[in-house]
This record gives sequence, structure tokens and C-alpha cells, in this order.
Amino acid sequence: MNVPYVKLDKAQLIMERNEVEKIYNQYKEKNLSLDMSRGKPCSKQLDLSLPMMDTLNSASDYMCAVDVRNYGVPMGISEARKLMADMLEVENDEVIVCGNASLSIMFDIISTAMNKGIMGQTPWGKLDEVKFLCPVPGYDRHFGITEYFGIKMINIPMTKEGPDMDLVEEYVNNDESVKGIWCVPKYSNPQGITYSDETVKRFAALKPAAKDFRIFWDNAYVIHDLYDDKKDELLPILSECKKAGNEDIVYILGSTSKVSFPGSGISAVGTSKNNIEDIMKRLSMQTIGHDKINQLRHVRFFGDINGMKEHMKKHAAIIRPKFELVDDILTKELGDLDICSWYNPNGGYFISFDSMNGCASQIVQKAKEAGVVLTGAGATFPYKKDPDDKNIRIAPTFPTDSELFEAAMLFTVCVKLVTLDKLISEL
Amino acid sequence: MNVPYVKLDKAQLIMERNEVEKIYNQYKEKNLSLDMSRGKPCSKQLDLSLPMMDTLNSASDYMCAVDVRNYGVPMGISEARKLMADMLEVENDEVIVCGNASLSIMFDIISTAMNKGIMGQTPWGKLDEVKFLCPVPGYDRHFGITEYFGIKMINIPMTKEGPDMDLVEEYVNNDESVKGIWCVPKYSNPQGITYSDETVKRFAALKPAAKDFRIFWDNAYVIHDLYDDKKDELLPILSECKKAGNEDIVYILGSTSKVSFPGSGISAVGTSKNNIEDIMKRLSMQTIGHDKINQLRHVRFFGDINGMKEHMKKHAAIIRPKFELVDDILTKELGDLDICSWYNPNGGYFISFDSMNGCASQIVQKAKEAGVVLTGAGATFPYKKDPDDKNIRIAPTFPTDSELFEAAMLFTVCVKLVTLDKLISEL
Repeated sequence: MNVPYVKLDKAQLIMERNEVEKIYNQYKEKNLSLDMSRGKPCSKQLDLSLPMMDTLNSASDYMCAVDVRNYGVPMGISEARKLMADMLEVENDEVIVCGNASLSIMFDIISTAMNKGIMGQTPWGKLDEVKFLCPVPGYDRHFGITEYFGIKMINIPMTKEGPDMDLVEEYVNNDESVKGIWCVPKYSNPQGITYSDETVKRFAALKPAAKDFRIFWDNAYVIHDLYDDKKDELLPILSECKKAGNEDIVYILGSTSKVSFPGSGISAVGTSKNNIEDIMKRLSMQTIGHDKINQLRHVRFFGDINGMKEHMKKHAAIIRPKFELVDDILTKELGDLDICSWYNPNGGYFISFDSMNGCASQIVQKAKEAGVVLTGAGATFPYKKDPDDKNIRIAPTFPTDSELFEAAMLFTVCVKLVTLDKLISEL
Repeated sequence: MNVPYVKLDKAQLIMERNEVEKIYNQYKEKNLSLDMSRGKPCSKQLDLSLPMMDTLNSASDYMCAVDVRNYGVPMGISEARKLMADMLEVENDEVIVCGNASLSIMFDIISTAMNKGIMGQTPWGKLDEVKFLCPVPGYDRHFGITEYFGIKMINIPMTKEGPDMDLVEEYVNNDESVKGIWCVPKYSNPQGITYSDETVKRFAALKPAAKDFRIFWDNAYVIHDLYDDKKDELLPILSECKKAGNEDIVYILGSTSKVSFPGSGISAVGTSKNNIEDIMKRLSMQTIGHDKINQLRHVRFFGDINGMKEHMKKHAAIIRPKFELVDDILTKELGDLDICSWYNPNGGYFISFDSMNGCASQIVQKAKEAGVVLTGAGATFPYKKDPDDKNIRIAPTFPTDSELFEAAMLFTVCVKLVTLDKLISEL
């Protein structure tokens, strides 16, 4: 049991600070060089998909309904469409299989909305103001896209059920300049929160003021469970939207980046047929087709969605201990100190850590000075501005176990040091 | 020797027409179903690259400067950058290796110019008028992109040396709304013309009225020679631009779509470092990186540019006889009739055929009615409008030799029939 810092008097705090500083300086002397900044699979995870590289060779059959080696089929081969439709929980004709990155799908949809508009509506680039709702903390690359296009971002606080839906409804149903919302509905980035059934139903039942309002439902971690016996369940949103007579409201994104290979996977968008038709108007100008050989490679390797889910259990076996290690260290070193909190997600790629207000930037800075790169403080907020300067995204998957142990220990030392400085200065 | 139609009197023309119609009807009865509409490699060509599928398997080494299986490296792995830089004849740091399609690179550059502008200039979408020069006949997918974005297209006649440079200079150097020109400088689509040294130098020495004028130098057929002893030579444009103090004026595009696999190759843009920096501002928002495993696969298979050029000789051996077959049939059936002309290119993917004015649409229609799909008449012009209705693009690579024979023979019958109808009606 640690004693809460609040119960220490000034002399005790200073004594504690000096001890923590000694430990911090010892870490500094180790000349660590670790990167925990991005949600990258580790080498062992990448090895899991190596057998995929044996599924196609020079003697393979490359004929599906088409010869996958030649031009064409911009919506993707039907076998891959079925696989990704099952992943995104939409019908087989409600999906386009694209290139290696769902990020590009989202970027391109917004780029097209800016230039040409969505389904015949005014191009966003011709409007005085376009706004996106951004549940926070959230995914920095989402916010990067909207910032790049000059779209005004509005913070929406996350609750344990998902985004604050009262606020979402108020904005979406009344403000015509609100054109979109970024969502990572399952094992959200970075908190690992899965939207409740009620949240999904409220999303599906939105009555947007703007006809071209769209939910960007980035289901990046749809099958990325850490535990066999503790899986979060997410309602399939497109079905809910249909029930609500609202089927054009959502783009569902997903990819195999953290299933097969980041950068060499396949991605997809699941959405209504109207939206597909609208997207294809641009896509058929932009490309003759995506990489169908890689689509076939994925189909041959995984077989179907069940094969993919089985594969994800192997990923979980590798990264679950990493999440548990970090949680153990945080609990042992910081538990009961009453100076921070963090989420233990059932899936996804991150542990979201909240320090006391005003400490996150300094903690990240201290860690960096001792050789451990964390995601930049503020990165999980639009414009990189965390109003409370408290959220830090911890990405435990990439480092080796021993690196992770060192990095997590150092992290707790930095948290203590910065917090003690703050408490002492405020006394 | 055929007798020129012009030397026939009306009775002879009618007699000839009736004989040709009989042959046409015999073709109709064959129920052909052939597609010569697109420049697609044939199955045997695709087989050539099958050994590439053996270069990477589960036991391969995936480490370059990075682990190619993981995220990152949006400019492409250095090995692939060198390969594609050598293909595009630029320096190793003057290239970005992208996904599977150079068409997407071009589309995305123009999309970005519309939304954000080029190098800080006014976004094209905010201008009253944006124009592109379009050498004609040209590549339909180029024209499709500019039409999609509402860019006004201006026809520039092709000469045997390339686009009419007097006209190009007049437009580019005086009209600030002219922002680009589409070029296929080697074995042009569809004529197979290679720009002369003087043409390249004049391009490099342009003094555009618009600071954000760019040449879209789509070097799609850069190593796509048909003959070992008759290779067209094209001056490397970026070197010429540098000499003229004009290095930011050009984007050079290329891909391995017709080297390895269409849809599963790698593409690249070669351009000045200023332009690369400008492109990366968007690209780093749009993707975390392209398919590096596929980049490595190409590097391992081809080794270097010489390996790639050797590989192209195998392609040439397959498709050269197809070009020669079509030329033989055209010569035998239509030669000396004085009703048409065509190009015999030294490389590329097309034979460009010019009928008498006003005949192309009907020839394509007649062929279609007899089961042979040609590229739509007009497709080689902006807005699909061939002012003379005379150009037809013949794509001989995809059909088998026997299919090609049938299709080419039928084509000549259609040319004769439509031309005779025209001549008779005008008497």
C-alpha cells in the first residue's frame, strides 16, 4: 500500500521528492533509448502473419471471378469484400475494399467532401465554416486530417459509455455547420472504451441539421480483444441506422493493419449503397483498382472472419502480458497515491493515463530526457491542446518485455517527480 | 495492292460496299466477343512476373533500414526509391514511392492543388477558372481527372515531335489560369510518339505566367520498348529543367503496372525537393506509409533498373508480334486505299488509327455490333469529343493471337464499310 501524497506534510513530500529524484537520475545514467509513442505491433506479432507470405507463390491460382493479377475491380474482389463485410458487420454489397490504409479512406472522403461535396450537397470548401465533433481524448491522426483541411474541431468529453451524447445531439441536430464526428467505437483510442448499446442507438437516431453530416466510425479495433473471457460487445451501427431510417449517416472503417501487416494489409469502408455510389464517383477517377493480389493473399490466409478472429487470439497472447505488466507496475508504484488514474482496456492498443492537471507535458518531457519517448502530451486532443494537460497515451505493444518494464518503471518515477514538484510548489 | 477508293466510280463503290457488307455479316454470325478497349497486359505477360511471388515467403528477411512489415516510411524504403529514381531518371532523394497506381498520385496532387494549393499559392478551387492543356489524342483517364475537378481542358495538337510547342508556350507563358499540361512523353498514349529533344528542352524552358503551373510528365512507358534495335530516346526532363533554372515545374510519374502486375505494382513520383516537401505535407496526413512489403518484393525480384529492363524484353517478345500482326492486317486490307492512317510505334501499348473524318464513331459502333469492343470513339479527347471524329485507339496486347487476328480483320471490314457509305453518300 502506498500512502496518498495528500496525507504527507511538506517535509515528507520534500523527502519523498529527493528520493524519487535519485531514482530518476539513476535511470538517466542507464542511457535508455525506448519508443512507446505509437501503437505499433511488436516483431513477434508481425511474425504471426509470416505464413501469409506462403499463401501465394508462382504456382498459385490467381483466378477468382477475375484474374487478380490484372487491372480493374475498384470495389475489390468479391471474396475480400465478403471478408471485410463480415469484419465490419455490413452486407457483402455494402463494402468497398481499398488499399493498405483506412486512414487514406477517411482522408480521401473528407478531401472529396471539401472539393465536390457529399451526395450533391455544397462542397465543404465553399462553406464559411465546417465543424467536426471530436470525442476526447481521441486519435491524433483523425484530428490531424481535420486540422489539415481547416475544419474547426469541437471537443466532446468521453464518458464510460462513449461520447457525451447529450452534447453530440445538441450540436448535430441543431448546427448545420457540424458535418462530422470522429469515433473509435470499440476499445477507443486511447481509453479503450467501447460505446454502450444506448450510445450506438443514439448515434443511429441522430437527426442532423446538415444533410451531409456523417459519422466516421473508425472501427480500428473491432476484433482486437485482449481476453477470451472479457470481450466488449459493440452493436453493429449500420443495422441500427437502417432501423432508424438513417442508413446514409455513417462510414464504417476498418483494416487488417493490426491483424496482418501494418502498411501491407487491406482496408475497407462499410456504408450504405447510396454512399458507396457517391464514393465510387471519385474512386473510379482516382484508381483503376486496388491491390487485388494482396486482397487474395488475405482471403487465402484467413479463409473467413472466424479464421481472422482465431488469428487475433495469437496477437492477444503476445500483447496481453504487456498490458498486464504496465498495469501491475502502475498499480504497485502509483496505486493509492491519489495522483492519477488509468484505464485497463479489454482490447485495443493503448493505456490511457491521466495525471493531475497540469502535469502531463512535464512527465512526457522528463521521460524523454531519460530516454523514453512517449506520445506527445496533448496529442490525444484537437490542435494538440489538452485543456487539463493531464492525458498521456501509453502504447505498450511495441517494446520487448524487458524494455517495457524499464520504460514503465521510469514512467512512474517521472509521474511521481512531476507531481511532487507540483504539490510542493502549491503548499 | 489495293486500289484507292477515290479512283472508283459510284457503281464500283456500291459493288465494293455490297461485298464488304457480306463479309461483315459473316463476322456477325461468328458471335465474337472480344475486348480491345483497354491497354491491358495479356495472361502470358502476367505469367512473366509470377516468379516475383517467390521472392518473399515466411522465411525471408524483412529487415531493410526498417522492418518493412511495420508502420512508417511514407516516402518508401530507400532500396525502392533508388529503383524507381533510376526508372524515372531522377536522383534517389527526388522520388517518393507510393502505392499501386501512378494515376492516384496524379489525382491526389490535383485534388490537393484544388483544396490547398501548390507551394502556398491560391487553391485552384478558389479561382474562377483553371485550365489544363491536353495534347490530343491523349490518355482518357488524364482527361477524366481534369473533367472531374471542373478544370477547363484545351486541346493541343500532337505533332511527330510531341505537342505543338508554339501553342504550349503561348498558353503557358501568357495565361495565368493555365495550371498544367498532361504529357505522356515516351510512346505517347495512343500514338506512340516520343517527344523530341527540342520539345523536352522547350518544356524545361517554359516561363509560366502561373507560379503553380506544373507539367504532369506521365512517363508510363519509359522502359516499354517493343524492339531491341529501335528504341526511342527521351531526354531526362528534370535534368533539363535544372539547367533552365526551372526544377519545380515538373512531376514525373511512373509505375510498374505494365512491368510487374497492373494493380499490384509500385508507383512513384519524381520531382524537385521543393515539390517533394510540398507533397509530403499532404501525404503525411493521408497515410502512415505505403505497402513496403510490396516495395521490397519488387526490389528483390528486379534487383536494379537493369534487371527491370531485361524483364521488359520478355514483355516485348510477347507483344511485339501482336503489334506486327495488326500492322500487317491493316496494311494488307487498308493500305493504299487512301482512307486512313495509323502509327507503328516502337513501344507503348497502342496503335493509333485515324479514319476519314466523321467515321470513327460509326466504325466503333459497327465493330461492337459484331462483338468486338474497341475504346469508345472520342475517348482520346477531352470531354470525349474528337472534333474530327476520326481517332480510334487500338489496344492489341490483351487478346490472344487468334482473337486479335479476328478482331483486326473485322476492324478493317468495319472501316471499309463505314468509309464506303460515307463516300457513296457524298457523291
